[in-house]
Amino acid sequence: MIYTAILGHGTVGSGVAEILINRKRHVSEKAHDDLEVKYILELRDFSHLTYAEKFTKDFEKIVNDRDVKIVAEVMGGLNPAYDFVKRCLLAGKSVVTSNKELVAAKGAELLSIAAKNNVNFLFEASVGGGIPILRPMAQCLAANDINRVTGILNGTTNYILNKMIVDSMDFDTALSLAKEKGFAEKDPTADIEGHDACRKICILASLAFGKHVYPDQVKTEGISNVTLDDVAYAEKFNCAIKLIAMAKKLPNGKISADVCPRLVSHDNILSNVDGVFNAIVVRGDATGDVMFYGKGAGKMPTASAVVADTIDCAKHLHARKYFDWQEGEKDYVTDDGLRKRFYVLIKSHDFERLLTDFGKAFPENTWNIKNEFAGEIAFITDEIYENELKAKLETLKCDSIKTMNTLF
Amino acid sequence: MIYTAILGHGTVGSGVAEILINRKRHVSEKAHDDLEVKYILELRDFSHLTYAEKFTKDFEKIVNDRDVKIVAEVMGGLNPAYDFVKRCLLAGKSVVTSNKELVAAKGAELLSIAAKNNVNFLFEASVGGGIPILRPMAQCLAANDINRVTGILNGTTNYILNKMIVDSMDFDTALSLAKEKGFAEKDPTADIEGHDACRKICILASLAFGKHVYPDQVKTEGISNVTLDDVAYAEKFNCAIKLIAMAKKLPNGKISADVCPRLVSHDNILSNVDGVFNAIVVRGDATGDVMFYGKGAGKMPTASAVVADTIDCAKHLHARKYFDWQEGEKDYVTDDGLRKRFYVLIKSHDFERLLTDFGKAFPENTWNIKNEFAGEIAFITDEIYENELKAKLETLKCDSIKTMNTLF
Repeated sequence: MIYTAILGHGTVGSGVAEILINRKRHVSEKAHDDLEVKYILELRDFSHLTYAEKFTKDFEKIVNDRDVKIVAEVMGGLNPAYDFVKRCLLAGKSVVTSNKELVAAKGAELLSIAAKNNVNFLFEASVGGGIPILRPMAQCLAANDINRVTGILNGTTNYILNKMIVDSMDFDTALSLAKEKGFAEKDPTADIEGHDACRKICILASLAFGKHVYPDQVKTEGISNVTLDDVAYAEKFNCAIKLIAMAKKLPNGKISADVCPRLVSHDNILSNVDGVFNAIVVRGDATGDVMFYGKGAGKMPTASAVVADTIDCAKHLHARKYFDWQEGEKDYVTDDGLRKRFYVLIKSHDFERLLTDFGKAFPENTWNIKNEFAGEIAFITDEIYENELKAKLETLKCDSIKTMNTLF
Repeated sequence: MIYTAILGHGTVGSGVAEILINRKRHVSEKAHDDLEVKYILELRDFSHLTYAEKFTKDFEKIVNDRDVKIVAEVMGGLNPAYDFVKRCLLAGKSVVTSNKELVAAKGAELLSIAAKNNVNFLFEASVGGGIPILRPMAQCLAANDINRVTGILNGTTNYILNKMIVDSMDFDTALSLAKEKGFAEKDPTADIEGHDACRKICILASLAFGKHVYPDQVKTEGISNVTLDDVAYAEKFNCAIKLIAMAKKLPNGKISADVCPRLVSHDNILSNVDGVFNAIVVRGDATGDVMFYGKGAGKMPTASAVVADTIDCAKHLHARKYFDWQEGEKDYVTDDGLRKRFYVLIKSHDFERLLTDFGKAFPENTWNIKNEFAGEIAFITDEIYENELKAKLETLKCDSIKTMNTLF
């Protein structure tokens, strides 16, 4: 018999409780031992539930109970989750979590505390919800050098962009629809502005490259500036606009990492990832591109990943899973300093002048759409350094300039 | 220091040797111990290689060497691989293999021998080459009930069908091109006729549902009857023709499983899996559909999966991985007995007559293409029992009838 505790009984927490309690036999079978939920930490009242007797408001009771071997932290947020998880690990309990904010900020530290105390700290659910990605990366790709991780890591923004693309729905309408459907939270900032995707790419990059990448090291841009015009031009360039998180290993041992909307070529399988789905493409030197795809969020997918980690902890109570990365470094994340291709949209009331200037600045450019009616030129650059592009664009006399990254 | 042996030095075997020997430090790091290749079993002469001294023609030397803890079987084929693997397991050595034929035929038996001898028998490379699929299914989906596994499991046939779809290349031309490019073997029967995909779905179904599924229990049809006309009609029905392997859990505890070409709706992500790529969609009750995608074959992808298993064995020399299924049963695999939608192509020199008969037999049908010029009617049925459809088709006076399954 192995006793567990659940910290938090929100969306994910209640899902975890339901699986661990209502499907106890199935779970215990997989764990090759009886898994019994002893406590659920929650301040709100759930006295109407059949398992109401398991609820407690007192964390001390849990951390001081020697019988509790595995703790599932599903409260979310940095505090008090960080303190609670740390103390559980120090108390010799294995911890599993779905808390991406916590892992992205404190992963290296918590992993080393887990190692010192010979317990496990697992967080499969923190990236891609129910999609198995961290374990396959750590284990199955062990024989690979991972060069690049690219992903659509946020279902809310992907749903919104998809609505803009497929139904020509403008951003605000798509956002309200997403809220209606429960795909977006009341305060959608973390999703819309890319913070959520940023935390996830931090976790993926830390695991893939062995050194902690912190959210504030990752250049992050959301989708609130993407317009229906951009979407339409992108379509003409045979691309779909997606919020892409990317981390690359650089020859100098450092990495580059960013989150931003990109024009993704329809030849790229990521352009086919629609709706609330997530997808992560891992590029290994031996395997080439491997993609993991599925619903990246939601109560049951995420809960099932937390439970899977719980089961894995139960099977490895005395054998540690090797699942580590080092603390990060100040200048570890940097620009890759490569030429890239950009999408550019320039607009002017004086279209003739714009045409001339454009012809002068980009004489070679062949991949462009001249929209006289709107006084716009949209084009895809050849490979060019970003600052070189900036300089060229400054020579243009125009009312507005917009650039976006691409993924071909 | 952990000694290993490699059985076979063909395409995959040489890849395994290269990774284990040339990238020894990287591999040993991941394994948290030194991995040293002591023997390579191979009858052919490789005396020109830097690691020539490791070669032996004598299997007894390997099986009787107590120092060898892990054996990688990459010879392929059922014999002598079966005998070799069995004897290695009985001798207390963990075994990893990429041999789908072996696992599909003898998996349950070899897994139970491994269990009895407290060693591991791992075969990630046997399905999907370098795509991590078996481990994620067994571990990350532990908290799920898996209801269905669907996959494009053979890169050769997918490449050929893709050529037919994109370049309107006929089957034979596409096949010879595949041979040229090294995507198809001299004797492509196992690929073209679906045997390779059949073995892989057997392994996936055995693991997903816990009971061994044998190749001869799985209704298997290849792609050699797919014509450019079918491909063209499919496109008009907004579908792509793919060789799909599928296994489903049935309410009565049995399963259904088959391999056959299907019209896959473009709304289904599997329709976007092109070229030599493989994709496996696992449907869990909690996670919903999760897809794993990548190159399903090739020297380095497959070799890297074999090495990853080797590393995992090294990390679990004394702790067994729980990775089991029971022996199969005679009537375990059966028809799901459900109504389905079919693609049907009927042809007659007397088109008027065909039209009348079709109208009588399928009065409700609205999704059809009447091709008077070719004297053909192509249509997608509503949901109907297969035998019911057969009966209806027998009432038609026509020169040829062709039916195909669908996946919407």
